[in-house]
Amino acid sequence: MEENRLLEIAIKAKEASKKIAIIPCELKNKALANIAANIKKNQSRILDANKKDLTEGEKLVKSGVITTSTFNRLKLDENKMRDMIQGIEDIIKLDDPIGKIQLRRQLDDGLILSRISCPIGVLGIIFEARPDVITQISALAIKSANAVILKGGKEAINTNKEIMTIIQEALDSTEGFPPNVLSQVFSREDVNLMLSMDKYINLIIPRGGNKLVKFIKENTKIPVLGHADGICHIYTDESADFEKAKRIIIDSKTQYPSACNSVETLLIYKDFNYTNQLLEALKDSGITLIDNPESWHKEYSDKILAYKIVGSLEEAIEHINEYSSGHTDSIITENENNAKIFMNAVDSAGVYHNVSTRFADGFRYGFGAEVGISTNKTHARGPVGLEGLTIYKYNLTGNGEIVKDYVEGKKHFKHKDF
Amino acid sequence: MEENRLLEIAIKAKEASKKIAIIPCELKNKALANIAANIKKNQSRILDANKKDLTEGEKLVKSGVITTSTFNRLKLDENKMRDMIQGIEDIIKLDDPIGKIQLRRQLDDGLILSRISCPIGVLGIIFEARPDVITQISALAIKSANAVILKGGKEAINTNKEIMTIIQEALDSTEGFPPNVLSQVFSREDVNLMLSMDKYINLIIPRGGNKLVKFIKENTKIPVLGHADGICHIYTDESADFEKAKRIIIDSKTQYPSACNSVETLLIYKDFNYTNQLLEALKDSGITLIDNPESWHKEYSDKILAYKIVGSLEEAIEHINEYSSGHTDSIITENENNAKIFMNAVDSAGVYHNVSTRFADGFRYGFGAEVGISTNKTHARGPVGLEGLTIYKYNLTGNGEIVKDYVEGKKHFKHKDF
Repeated sequence: MEENRLLEIAIKAKEASKKIAIIPCELKNKALANIAANIKKNQSRILDANKKDLTEGEKLVKSGVITTSTFNRLKLDENKMRDMIQGIEDIIKLDDPIGKIQLRRQLDDGLILSRISCPIGVLGIIFEARPDVITQISALAIKSANAVILKGGKEAINTNKEIMTIIQEALDSTEGFPPNVLSQVFSREDVNLMLSMDKYINLIIPRGGNKLVKFIKENTKIPVLGHADGICHIYTDESADFEKAKRIIIDSKTQYPSACNSVETLLIYKDFNYTNQLLEALKDSGITLIDNPESWHKEYSDKILAYKIVGSLEEAIEHINEYSSGHTDSIITENENNAKIFMNAVDSAGVYHNVSTRFADGFRYGFGAEVGISTNKTHARGPVGLEGLTIYKYNLTGNGEIVKDYVEGKKHFKHKDF
Repeated sequence: MEENRLLEIAIKAKEASKKIAIIPCELKNKALANIAANIKKNQSRILDANKKDLTEGEKLVKSGVITTSTFNRLKLDENKMRDMIQGIEDIIKLDDPIGKIQLRRQLDDGLILSRISCPIGVLGIIFEARPDVITQISALAIKSANAVILKGGKEAINTNKEIMTIIQEALDSTEGFPPNVLSQVFSREDVNLMLSMDKYINLIIPRGGNKLVKFIKENTKIPVLGHADGICHIYTDESADFEKAKRIIIDSKTQYPSACNSVETLLIYKDFNYTNQLLEALKDSGITLIDNPESWHKEYSDKILAYKIVGSLEEAIEHINEYSSGHTDSIITENENNAKIFMNAVDSAGVYHNVSTRFADGFRYGFGAEVGISTNKTHARGPVGLEGLTIYKYNLTGNGEIVKDYVEGKKHFKHKDF
């Protein structure tokens, strides 16, 4: 029964994905503007629904089912509503990621190959707690012409339902916009069914804790875009500037300790002249230092920082390539050559020089928004905005050309790019 | 025991992948030139080894273990050897796919973000029969700075071993080229172990029949690049030119019927004026026509063509989006508007107008070579050359910038592209 219902949702999403793939960008932007306007008009409906979730949430905190930080992320206020609306308006302003000509090549006279960006199809997005994520994800999906099946956290169910209703009202009132582009499911059982629907769902994007992401990666044949761990490193090189090192490490660890791009491990070169001052300064800023962690793989998500003295730049690079989750790693140095070596050799989505690891973020990179941060080595890596939600197709136009002529040497390829 | 041996190969390949990632392009090209020269010098060794496989192969054909067409693909001769060498020399001439700056953006004064292409890491490539594939794959892997673990078909084991020995001799004699970039495994058991090594292997590329590819997709968490089926379609529209239609369909079906890009289903518009002549001409060229196939999903890989009369362009598009394997589909029409609708709406890696489906090929697209053809909707789609063997990383350089300043509004992002 449940399976049939989800199958119907998936089939309809697939149909919708074919339709949204070919609508003009103006219509996608119109739909997004209508969503922003309808949210603005109905903020009180969302806040009322959110109050229900918060009342339940307080009980869940007391009984220890959810943490205070989960509860805090659940809470919407007028500032968050304003950001939600602004987020949609920012995405309207972005260039259409679909229909971009990435390559145009003359294979022979009159035989023209084009590579054109197109949507992926149906996205399955599974997220926890923060209900404001729905508008961002929906807006990115619509702009990139994908259909999406959303599953939010059960703590936010009333808020999520209300936001989705308001979004659907806006889409229904947008003339020519295809139905079923967005759908929402609610149960853990639905997630399991989604993960089995590789015939209909082209990409799964989990946004949430390590446990959720690992579970999803273990249980689906569908490509998964995201990251489980965020084990980020900072290496303080011999010639690091003390003040810069202090600023950068404190920001990387304390500005938002539970973020995936906050630093977990500090490596310090053995002959760095200010090691003791640096460690003292970090303690003074409220950071607990650990020089003998249970595992260099541990993500603390708190004001706790593991550190290690290393004998060389190479040792630092080796440690990072062994223990980093491939998210973001930074070197602090005034030695340009060492910076260059580090940035070439460290195999992570973000490799930084003299800046905080906390810059790893779609907004900060100027992508307008992000569906998440990927530590994958295929498709998209780092913060993923609109471009990571697209793929391409090859169009070839000619006038009766056949392969036989080329195989037999009667004709020859020219391969000239326009 | 076997597991330990393969684990060691995988660990060494991972180490090698870090080393080859940072060597200059000249060294990669030097290694490739040495490979080409050593193959040229030792052709007789390869042909002798091939003779052993052919002797065994004859027995296997007689006892029905392998087909004649598999046996034919096994066979090397001087023409194929020349093509192998030429293929390597072509790859030397291609631009370095690594270190390309794909984006350069000023986030703020002195805070510079770059997106740079880099290798994926370790590729696991599993292929059948054709031993000449080894040189092509090895050359593409080296040029794209990836390490690779190869598993060839057991029918070609002597040839594969000899080619790999000759390649390794060339790499060993290339000063500064890291060891263990290429390794080879031999058994079905090794394949199963490879598929479980998601910690070490970043991408699996199967080249072979439907059964092999499906087995691999079902049995690994590692991303798989390739295609299982090649169900390609041609739609003959109302205004199709009869002569073009005939030429294109015959080429698409008969030029190499067992290729993945040969056509399996012909759709004809109900009021096309030359349907009977067309079907007669196809029969005359040796094609068996089937108007009531067991399944529209069937890949014949032979001179057999299913056909169907459709009531509209939309019906043709719907049929294709339902039954196509997303490989390559072509429309034959003189109506530019219908061609445009078809090319927009058909959701396949290759969508063609007035040309044979057999053009779907890396050489014909001008990619120099291909590791395979992908029907995936993520990462790479269509023929995959060097670019599909790369990913990117983000480098960010600054001078002590921290996120706190931007979050608190003391500083603002500029986001200007260079």
